[in-house]
Amino acid sequence: MSSLKTIRMVEAADLEDIATGGAILGTGGGGDPYVGKLMAQQAIRKHGPVRLVDVDSFDDDTLIAPVCMMGAPTVMTEKLPQGEEIVIALRKLEKFMGRKVDGLLCGEAGGINSTTPFVAAAATGLPLIDGDGMGRAYPELQMTTFGMHGVSATPMVLGDDKGNTVVLETIDNRWTERLARSCTVDMGGSALLAFYPMSGKLAKLSTVRGTLSLCAELGRKLAQARVRHEDPVEAIRAAVGAEVIFNGRVKDVLRRTVGGFARGEADIEGLDEFKGHRLKLAFQNEFLLAERDGETLVTTPDMITLLEAETGAPVTADAMRYGIRVAALAFPCAAAWRTPQGLKLVGPKYFGYDAEYKAFEPRVA
Amino acid sequence: MSSLKTIRMVEAADLEDIATGGAILGTGGGGDPYVGKLMAQQAIRKHGPVRLVDVDSFDDDTLIAPVCMMGAPTVMTEKLPQGEEIVIALRKLEKFMGRKVDGLLCGEAGGINSTTPFVAAAATGLPLIDGDGMGRAYPELQMTTFGMHGVSATPMVLGDDKGNTVVLETIDNRWTERLARSCTVDMGGSALLAFYPMSGKLAKLSTVRGTLSLCAELGRKLAQARVRHEDPVEAIRAAVGAEVIFNGRVKDVLRRTVGGFARGEADIEGLDEFKGHRLKLAFQNEFLLAERDGETLVTTPDMITLLEAETGAPVTADAMRYGIRVAALAFPCAAAWRTPQGLKLVGPKYFGYDAEYKAFEPRVA
Repeated sequence: MSSLKTIRMVEAADLEDIATGGAILGTGGGGDPYVGKLMAQQAIRKHGPVRLVDVDSFDDDTLIAPVCMMGAPTVMTEKLPQGEEIVIALRKLEKFMGRKVDGLLCGEAGGINSTTPFVAAAATGLPLIDGDGMGRAYPELQMTTFGMHGVSATPMVLGDDKGNTVVLETIDNRWTERLARSCTVDMGGSALLAFYPMSGKLAKLSTVRGTLSLCAELGRKLAQARVRHEDPVEAIRAAVGAEVIFNGRVKDVLRRTVGGFARGEADIEGLDEFKGHRLKLAFQNEFLLAERDGETLVTTPDMITLLEAETGAPVTADAMRYGIRVAALAFPCAAAWRTPQGLKLVGPKYFGYDAEYKAFEPRVA
Repeated sequence: MSSLKTIRMVEAADLEDIATGGAILGTGGGGDPYVGKLMAQQAIRKHGPVRLVDVDSFDDDTLIAPVCMMGAPTVMTEKLPQGEEIVIALRKLEKFMGRKVDGLLCGEAGGINSTTPFVAAAATGLPLIDGDGMGRAYPELQMTTFGMHGVSATPMVLGDDKGNTVVLETIDNRWTERLARSCTVDMGGSALLAFYPMSGKLAKLSTVRGTLSLCAELGRKLAQARVRHEDPVEAIRAAVGAEVIFNGRVKDVLRRTVGGFARGEADIEGLDEFKGHRLKLAFQNEFLLAERDGETLVTTPDMITLLEAETGAPVTADAMRYGIRVAALAFPCAAAWRTPQGLKLVGPKYFGYDAEYKAFEPRVA
């Protein structure tokens, strides 16, 4: 593995930026960045820094395993995971497959799942690929660019904080989601996973590149803007090439936890240039659809991110509450999602919304 | 394995009696004997007879694996399993444990689960132990004499008819039940299992002896009574040493399928010597409590079996319907269940009934 191209060594202090950036790409879901940061920092302080590497430097016949946490973010913040369960899941996957994993990969970007892989990488000393399987966060585990390229989510291992583990082998990734979701609910609402084991060749084909570097960059830009007393929302907007689709105040949030998901709708009342207008955001863990004055403006798979207007801090669907001032940003998803295969997995129809996907740029410009 | 003591070779024709006898010991649960019989007969016709062996002839360091079907009988009769899934579950268990199984064992007695192991034994050529882990049927998988003797239910494999498999490793057998139940519900309501893998030593310690021979004997006695125009209910009563606690007509059955279980209550109106009396039977897959005229008469773990008055055919809780004439029999459970450890696992309190266990004999005599 000495031929691997190192992008950077990640220290505990870097996790602050990565977790914040993850929450921005998490588009309202992907968990609380505070929880994710603490877990990863604790692991790096204990075991040493993590080597972030380029997916293209892996040989075709190596074994790559994504790791992540599954569950409703609502539950995660109440039930802080220790993180070491993820190593148990990884080791059980290796035992089941009868071979060692050569590199780790991030399943999704998000406050928690952009940081979870750092726990596994620190504890095992394995290199971590700079990329992920979504370029954002999504609520169901078959919604990955890995699966889109034919990678099976199984064999997959789920582990909980008590010591229970489950190994799934399923006929397709929808079945994996179904069985894993029930087990996660049983396990108390969240579980740690090692899944989508794949060859280096498939990892090179299916990984969304540079996600963790982008997380770090977004976190850093936000911190810089604050130090320099610049507009933090504008700093993020410029960094991801987003459009600001709304400014306003959260008026109402309806939410319920159903089958392990945090679902609901937020109603935002316009301020400044959006005074007199309304934005409705629908979410299933992540923000999936934005309607302005009754018209569909942005839908999944494009990115809808909510930032606190004053601080630029990403606001998760879960943390939204009455009265906070927010800016809503829209920016393009990973290119893979805009294909017919991508839209079949994560388009608005899949989530039950009565809307056709259209790239948001012409409508917003 | 040539040192194993063969009790008998079981042919396809023998399954008729075994399935019927299983349904009698199934105490209202354990599935439809017709379904179980068909599956096992099909397997034996295809692969050859099954060698029924004495558990005591296994060496201490052999590996024994019980196999069974999990799920609500209500569902099983609508969704006929093929049976071969059980071999997939068994082979996956062997792969996971890294060693071959030397003998199969029956998890519970019942219309389906006294016959399921014959499918696995016929298809693999493995010997089948004459015994089981309950001496009857029970709704939850931690309710076994294996577990009572400290055997872990995991590693355990569940397989479904579509090709999905799940390997569980849990911290205790209650957790196994919880996770396996959810997976079974997801899998469509029923799944095939290989579980409680144990040494020959533990199998000798924890197995209820002679269950499958007893099933065959009960089925045979019932068939003989019919041919000879003798009272079939009396034939069964004498064979198991039961007391007839009621004769009557089913007046009302309340049932619902909750979380994978068939639960409910039956109300039976007395006839003949029981005219003017009422029997209430509470069930959770199995009959667990019998109240005569408001007084608790028999509770789990003692056996409550319902027979059709005319034919002596066992009546499952699932097949009970308005108007059929039945005789209710009570007989003692396997001795292991009457211990404090046994009652903790399967006493009336565990099932939520407000009753203390007392051996039924003095109350019925």
